[in-house]
Amino acid sequence: MEIKEFYDYNKEIAKFKVAYALVEWDMRTKMPPKAAMDRAEVAGKLARTIFDMGTSPKMATFVEYFNRPKINEKLSEVDRRNVYLVTKEYRRVSSIPPDEFEKFTIACSKGENVWQEAKVESNFAKFKPYLEEIVGYLKKFVEYYGYEENKYDALLEDYEPSMTTKDLKKIIDELKAELVPFIKDLTSKGKAPDTSILKGNFDKASQERLSHEVLSAMTYDFNGGRIDETAHPFTIGMGVGDVRVTTNYHVDDMTSALFSTMHEGGHALYEQGVSEAYKLMPIYNGASMGIHESQSRTWENLVGRSRSFWKFFFPKLQNIFPQFKGVPLEKFYRAINLTKPSLIRIESDEVTYNLHIMIRFEMEEALINDKIKVADLPEVWNEKVKQYLGIDVPDNAHGVLQDVHWSGGQIGYFPSYMLGNLYASQFFFTAKKEIPNLEEEIENGNLKVLREWQREKIHKFGALYDPKDLLIKVTGEPLSHKFFMNYVKEKFSEIYF
Amino acid sequence: MEIKEFYDYNKEIAKFKVAYALVEWDMRTKMPPKAAMDRAEVAGKLARTIFDMGTSPKMATFVEYFNRPKINEKLSEVDRRNVYLVTKEYRRVSSIPPDEFEKFTIACSKGENVWQEAKVESNFAKFKPYLEEIVGYLKKFVEYYGYEENKYDALLEDYEPSMTTKDLKKIIDELKAELVPFIKDLTSKGKAPDTSILKGNFDKASQERLSHEVLSAMTYDFNGGRIDETAHPFTIGMGVGDVRVTTNYHVDDMTSALFSTMHEGGHALYEQGVSEAYKLMPIYNGASMGIHESQSRTWENLVGRSRSFWKFFFPKLQNIFPQFKGVPLEKFYRAINLTKPSLIRIESDEVTYNLHIMIRFEMEEALINDKIKVADLPEVWNEKVKQYLGIDVPDNAHGVLQDVHWSGGQIGYFPSYMLGNLYASQFFFTAKKEIPNLEEEIENGNLKVLREWQREKIHKFGALYDPKDLLIKVTGEPLSHKFFMNYVKEKFSEIYF
Repeated sequence: MEIKEFYDYNKEIAKFKVAYALVEWDMRTKMPPKAAMDRAEVAGKLARTIFDMGTSPKMATFVEYFNRPKINEKLSEVDRRNVYLVTKEYRRVSSIPPDEFEKFTIACSKGENVWQEAKVESNFAKFKPYLEEIVGYLKKFVEYYGYEENKYDALLEDYEPSMTTKDLKKIIDELKAELVPFIKDLTSKGKAPDTSILKGNFDKASQERLSHEVLSAMTYDFNGGRIDETAHPFTIGMGVGDVRVTTNYHVDDMTSALFSTMHEGGHALYEQGVSEAYKLMPIYNGASMGIHESQSRTWENLVGRSRSFWKFFFPKLQNIFPQFKGVPLEKFYRAINLTKPSLIRIESDEVTYNLHIMIRFEMEEALINDKIKVADLPEVWNEKVKQYLGIDVPDNAHGVLQDVHWSGGQIGYFPSYMLGNLYASQFFFTAKKEIPNLEEEIENGNLKVLREWQREKIHKFGALYDPKDLLIKVTGEPLSHKFFMNYVKEKFSEIYF
Repeated sequence: MEIKEFYDYNKEIAKFKVAYALVEWDMRTKMPPKAAMDRAEVAGKLARTIFDMGTSPKMATFVEYFNRPKINEKLSEVDRRNVYLVTKEYRRVSSIPPDEFEKFTIACSKGENVWQEAKVESNFAKFKPYLEEIVGYLKKFVEYYGYEENKYDALLEDYEPSMTTKDLKKIIDELKAELVPFIKDLTSKGKAPDTSILKGNFDKASQERLSHEVLSAMTYDFNGGRIDETAHPFTIGMGVGDVRVTTNYHVDDMTSALFSTMHEGGHALYEQGVSEAYKLMPIYNGASMGIHESQSRTWENLVGRSRSFWKFFFPKLQNIFPQFKGVPLEKFYRAINLTKPSLIRIESDEVTYNLHIMIRFEMEEALINDKIKVADLPEVWNEKVKQYLGIDVPDNAHGVLQDVHWSGGQIGYFPSYMLGNLYASQFFFTAKKEIPNLEEEIENGNLKVLREWQREKIHKFGALYDPKDLLIKVTGEPLSHKFFMNYVKEKFSEIYF
C-alpha cells in the first residue's frame, strides 16, 4: 500500500470538512433565519459523512497497515505525524458506538437550544436535564477512550493533546499563588485608570473600517480571507486560501469589536501561515486549542493592549474616530488596561481572566470524577466566584449559565484559554529575545516582523508537533507560569502604582 | 417497499444539493480569490456524491419498483410526479458512462476558464478546441439520451421538458413574421426616447438601499433570503427558507442593478412560493427554466418597466437619488423603454431580446445536427446578426464569444429565455383578466396582489406539472406568440409614435 492512497482518502474527507466549515460559517453570519431548522440537517448529514468515512473499513485498513512497526519507521516525519493524528482520531471516534455518538450529537444540539433559553430566563432547572444527559454521555466516552490517571485527561486530550490533569493542577497552583495576591494588591492599593474616554457613539461603518485597518496592519491576507459580522466572534478556516474572521460591533463601545477583531486575527494569522505543502492533510491545522489561543491572545493583548502598538495605531484610530483627537495617548493606553474582578469571563481583562478558567476547570474535573453532580453546579459556581474573584453572583445567567461550552458537550475546553495566555507570554518572551528591537518595530507599525517570527517558529508547522514539544522547541523550556506573571506584574504595576 | 423510503433517500441527496448550492453561492459572492482552485475540488466532490447517489443500485431499485404499473397507479399525484422526475433524471444520468460524465465535467470547467480569456482577447481560435470537445460530448450524450425527431430535442429536455424543436421552430416563425417588421417600423419611423436623464453618478450604498426597497415592495421575504453583490447576477435556492438574490452595481447606471434585482427577485418569489409540503422533494423546484424565466421577466419588464409601477415607485427613487426630483415621470418611463437593435444579448431591450435567442437557437440546432461545425460559428453568427438585427459585428468578443453558456456545456438553454418572455405575456394577460383592477393595485404599490395570484396559480405547484400543462391550466390555451406581440405593439407604439 502506498502512502498516497492514505492521503487521497483523507483528502476526500477534508473536502467534506471544507463544505461543513462553510455551512457552519454561513449559519453564523449570512444565513436567513427561516433556513435554520433545515440547514442543521444539512450540517448533520455532512458530519455523519465525515464520521462514517473516518471509521470506515478502508480507514481501519490504513490505520492497521501504516502503524505496523516496519512500515511506520520508514515513513517521513510528516507522513508519520499524519498517520499518528489519523490513528488517534480513528481510535477515539470508533471507540464510540455510532448510535451513541449520534444520540450525543442530538443531545448537544438540543442542549445548545435549551441553554440559550435557560440563559435568557436565568433558569438552571430548565437546562439541568439536558446537561445531565450530555455529561452522562461524556462519562461513558471517557471509559471508551480510556485514561491513565484521571478521567478528565480523556476529555482534555481533545483540546490539548498530551496535557494531563496533574500538570494542569500544578501550573494552576503555581499561578494562583502569585496571581491572587497580586490582584488583591492592584484592586486594593492601586489606582484604576479612568475609562470614561472610551464611552461614545461609534457608527458601524467606521468600526468596520477600523477592523479592516487593524487586520491589514497585522498583515492578515484579505486575498485569502474576509471579515464579517456575527453574534459570537469566531475564526474559521476552510481549506487553502480561505481563513475567515468574524467580529461583533457595539455602537457604544468600539473597543469590543477592535479587540475581538485582533483576537480573531491572531487565530487567522496562524491558519494562514501553515505550510501550503500540508494542504488537506490532517496536520493542516493548529497544534492545539491552547497554542491557537496563544496566537490570538498575543495579538489581542501583548500587542493590542501595548503602549508600542498604540504609538503606531492611535493616529489611525483618531482619524476614524475624531473624538479621540484631544485624548493623550497615555490616557487611552491606561483606559484600555483597566483590570477588575467581574462576573463574565468573556468580558474580563487579561489579569483576572485566568481565575475564571480555574473555576471552570475545578468544576469540570469534579463533575467528571463524580465528586459533584450537575445539580450542585450553581451552588459550587457561586462559592468559587466568591472565593476567587471576591464577588457575589446575582443570578445564574451571570453565573453558571453564562458559557455555551457545556451545552455543546465541550467539557475539557476551558483550560485551553488559560494555557493560551501562558503560552502567549512564554512565546513573546522568546520573540523579544530573538528580535531585540521588536518593540521599536511595533511602534513603527512593522508588525510583519512579529508575524514572520511566529510563522517561522510556530505557524508553518501546523500540527506537526504536540504543543508540549513545540513550546520547548521554540522557547527552550517547558511551560511555566512565570512569563505570564512577570508580564502582568510589570505592565499593571506601572499602570496602577 | 414504502414510498417513505424513496423520499428519505431523495432527501439525503437533497441535503448534499443544499451544501452544493451554498458552495456555489459562496464562490460567486463571498469567497476570497485564493480559495478558488481548491474550492472547485470541494464542489466537484459534492457533485460526484450527488451523481453517485442518483445512479446507485438503491436508486435503481426505487425506480424499478415505483414504476411497476400496479404500484405506480396507486400513488398520489404528488408521489407519482416525484417518482416520474426522479426516474427521468436517473435514466438520463445513468445512460452516460460515469467516466465520460466526469471528463465532460472537467471539459466544461476548463472550457469556462478558457472562454473567459478568449472573450477578453476576442480570440475564437483559442476557445475552439475546447468547444469542440464539449460539443463532441454533447453529441454523444444525445445518442445516450435518445430522441424522436430531432437530436436537439434531447438537449432541450434538460431545460424545457416536453418542448420540441418542431414546436420551437413553429413559434419562432410566427413570432419572427410579426416582430421583425414591427422593429423595423419602430426604428425607422418612430421617435426614440431621450435617455440622457439616466446618466449620472450613483453611489453603491444608495443603490443597495434601492435594491432592498424594490425587493421589499415586491414582497420578497428577507427572513428567507438575502441580497448580495456578484459579477453576473443569479438567484439560488438552498432548501427551505433560503432563496438568495444577487445583483451587480454600476456607479454610472443605476438602472442596471435595479432591473437585475427585479429580475432575480422574480425568480426568488417563485422559489419562495413553492408549497412547503414539497420541501426536499424533487418537485420542490420550478416547472422549467422557461417558466422560471417568465416570473423574472414579469417583474423586470411587465411590472418594472410599466407606467403603473413607476407611478408608485418613482417618488421612492427620487428620495434615494434626488437628481430625479426635477424629472417628469413620463420622461423617466420613456427613457427606461428605449428599444434599439444591439450586439449584446444581456443588454438588449424587451422588444429585440427574442431576436438574439432565435440566432442562438438556429445555430445550436444546426451544430448538434451536423449542419455546421464549431469552426463555422463566428461566420454564421455574424451573418445572422446582420440578417436579424441589421448590424455588423465588430469582433468575436461582441459576437460569438459573448455568452458563457456553451463553454459550460449548456446547449439547449437559450430557448428558455425566449419562452420566458412569451409565457410571461401570456400569464400576465390572464392575470389582468382575473384581477380587473391589477394596474390600479400596482399604481398603489400593492404588488402583493400580483404575487398572490402567481403563487396560487404557478409558484405553489413547484414542478408538479410540465410547463405545457401548467400554461394551459393557468391561461386556458397553449403557447402563443400573440400575447407578447400584442403587449410590445401596444406599449412601444404608444412610446414611439
